[in-house]
Amino acid sequence: MSRRQVDVPALVEAARAGAPRAVARLISLVEDAHPALREVMTALAPHTGHAHIIGLTGSPGVGKSTMTNALVTAFRKQGKRVAVLAVDPSSPFSGGALLGDRVRMQDHALDPEVYIRSLASRGHLGGLSSATPQALRVLDAAGCDVVLVETVGVGQSEVEVVGMADTTLVLLAPGMGDGIQAAKAGILEIGDIFVVNKADRDGADATVRDIRHMISLGDRAQPGLWRPPVLKTKADRMEGIEEVLEGIEKHIAWTSENGELKRRRKARAADEIEAIVLSELRSRIGDLRGRHSIDELAEQVALGQSDPYRASDSILADLV
Amino acid sequence: MSRRQVDVPALVEAARAGAPRAVARLISLVEDAHPALREVMTALAPHTGHAHIIGLTGSPGVGKSTMTNALVTAFRKQGKRVAVLAVDPSSPFSGGALLGDRVRMQDHALDPEVYIRSLASRGHLGGLSSATPQALRVLDAAGCDVVLVETVGVGQSEVEVVGMADTTLVLLAPGMGDGIQAAKAGILEIGDIFVVNKADRDGADATVRDIRHMISLGDRAQPGLWRPPVLKTKADRMEGIEEVLEGIEKHIAWTSENGELKRRRKARAADEIEAIVLSELRSRIGDLRGRHSIDELAEQVALGQSDPYRASDSILADLV
Repeated sequence: MSRRQVDVPALVEAARAGAPRAVARLISLVEDAHPALREVMTALAPHTGHAHIIGLTGSPGVGKSTMTNALVTAFRKQGKRVAVLAVDPSSPFSGGALLGDRVRMQDHALDPEVYIRSLASRGHLGGLSSATPQALRVLDAAGCDVVLVETVGVGQSEVEVVGMADTTLVLLAPGMGDGIQAAKAGILEIGDIFVVNKADRDGADATVRDIRHMISLGDRAQPGLWRPPVLKTKADRMEGIEEVLEGIEKHIAWTSENGELKRRRKARAADEIEAIVLSELRSRIGDLRGRHSIDELAEQVALGQSDPYRASDSILADLV
Repeated sequence: MSRRQVDVPALVEAARAGAPRAVARLISLVEDAHPALREVMTALAPHTGHAHIIGLTGSPGVGKSTMTNALVTAFRKQGKRVAVLAVDPSSPFSGGALLGDRVRMQDHALDPEVYIRSLASRGHLGGLSSATPQALRVLDAAGCDVVLVETVGVGQSEVEVVGMADTTLVLLAPGMGDGIQAAKAGILEIGDIFVVNKADRDGADATVRDIRHMISLGDRAQPGLWRPPVLKTKADRMEGIEEVLEGIEKHIAWTSENGELKRRRKARAADEIEAIVLSELRSRIGDLRGRHSIDELAEQVALGQSDPYRASDSILADLV
C-alpha cells in the first residue's frame, strides 16, 4: 500500500476531466484503503448520482465477458462514456486480477471513452462491500454515463455486490441455468433482467420457459412489482443486444418513476456507510489487540479457562 | 435458521460422549449463529485444547480429498478419533455444501470414529473466521484427537482459515505448483509442510526443488525457525503418507517445545473473539439501521449532499 502524499484536489479535478490515469489512481486509493480516501470522497460527493450502474453476474462459461463487450459496443454507439468494473476477489490461486484488464476487452482497449478496470480486494472483511461502492463513486464523479459491474468470481458476496446496482442483469446459458439452480444461487431475487446467452444452443427455449416459470411462482410475480423480462442473446454476434438495452431503459424508467432507483441508491449508500463504520471499528479492535488485555483474554480462551463470548464481552466494554 | 429451544447441557453431554448427532447439531448451531451458542461455548470451554488441528489447502486438482482420505486412514490405523471439517464458503453457483458430506469420503463413511462435516458459512462478513474456530471447538470438546480442516474453495479467506491450524499442510501437484505461483498465492508463508502429490507425474522433482528454493530465499530460512519439509506422495496409493505423518509429529513436537503451538492457539482464540465482537457490533449497527438516523444519512449520501465518511462519523458517535 502506498502511503505517500496525495494531492487530492488535483487528482479529483483530473479525474473529473476524464483523465484515465487520475481515475486509475483514485481507484487504487480505494483498493489500498488509503488514508486520503476520506478527503477524496468528500471532494467527489457533489459530482455523483449521474451514472447508471448496471450489474452483470452469472456462472462461469455463460459468456459474461462477451456480453460485457457487446454492451460496451452498444452503449458506445449511443455516444455514452462507459466504464467496466470487474469485481474480482483475487483468489490467491487463480491470480485473476493479474491477468491484465485490457486483455479481457480487446475491442475497446484503445477507445478513450471506455474505461476498464479490475477491482481486486483481498479477502479483508468488508473489502468487497466497501471497495465496490467507493470505486463506483469515483467512476460516477469522473463523468461515466454507464458503469458495468461484472463479477469475475461466483461467491455470495460478489452476487451481493452486483445486486447493489441500479439494474442487475443475470446471464444464463442453455442447460446450465435451470430454474432450480438459479433459485439456489439466489439470483432469481437479484435479477432485474435475465438473459439466456448462447441462444443458438439446444435447450435455450426451455431455459427461458423455466426461468419465467420460476419468476411466476415467486414473490416478484405480485402486481405492482417489476416483472423481470427473460431475453435471448448471441452476444458474440451482437444478436439480441438491442433488446437488452431496451430492457435496461424500461427498467430505468420504471425505477425512476416509482422511487425504486432512489431506494436502491440509498441502500447502496447505507451499505457503504456501514462498511466504513465496521472498518473503523476493526481498526480500533486492532489497536486493542496490541495491548495486554486482548492477549490475556485470548490466552485464557486458548487454555479453556474462559470462552470466546465472555472474552468478547470484555472487549466490547473496552470499546464502546 | 432454527430458533427453537435447545437443551444445551444435554446436547453438550451427548457430544462429549461422542454421539455424532449431537456433534452435528452443535455445528449446525455454529452455522446458524444460533443464540444458544454463547451457552454452548461456555459449556465446551473446559473440555477443549486436546485435539490437534491440521489444515489442508491447495489448488483444485492437486488431490486434496484423496490426501484427506489417506490421512484419515493413517490416523485410524493409530487408533485415533478423527474429524474432517471441509470449509466451504458455499459458492451460490456450485452449491458445494449440498453435495453431501459422506459422498466425498466413502472409505470412512461407516466408521463411527470418523466424523465428516462440511461447514457452510454463507457469505456473511466474519462468517468463515468465526464459524471455523467455533466448529473446531465443538469437535475438540467432543474428544477428537485429530481434526483435518480442508478448504473446498480457494479464496484468500479460506487459506487464512486453514492457516489457523496447529499444523498446515499445503498440497501441490507437479507443474501446477511452481514456486512463483505458490508465492503469489501466499501459501509459502502458511505451509508448515509442503506435499507434492501425484509424484509419479513429470516434473515432480522440479516442483520439490522449486518450493525448497523459494523457502530458502524467504524469511523462514532464518536459523531457529521451523524449516518446512517438502515431501512427495501418491495419496491414491498411500505412498509417502507415513512420511507426512512423521512430518506432522515432528512439527507438533517442535511447536510444543518452543511455545509456537501455544502462540498459534492464542492467535486463533484472538481471531475468534474478534469475530464475535465484530458480529455483535454489526448487529448493533443493524439495529441503528432501522431507525430514522441512518436512513437519512444514506439519503444525503445518495444525493451527493454528504459523503460516506462524514455519515459514518455520525453512526460511530451514536454507537460508541
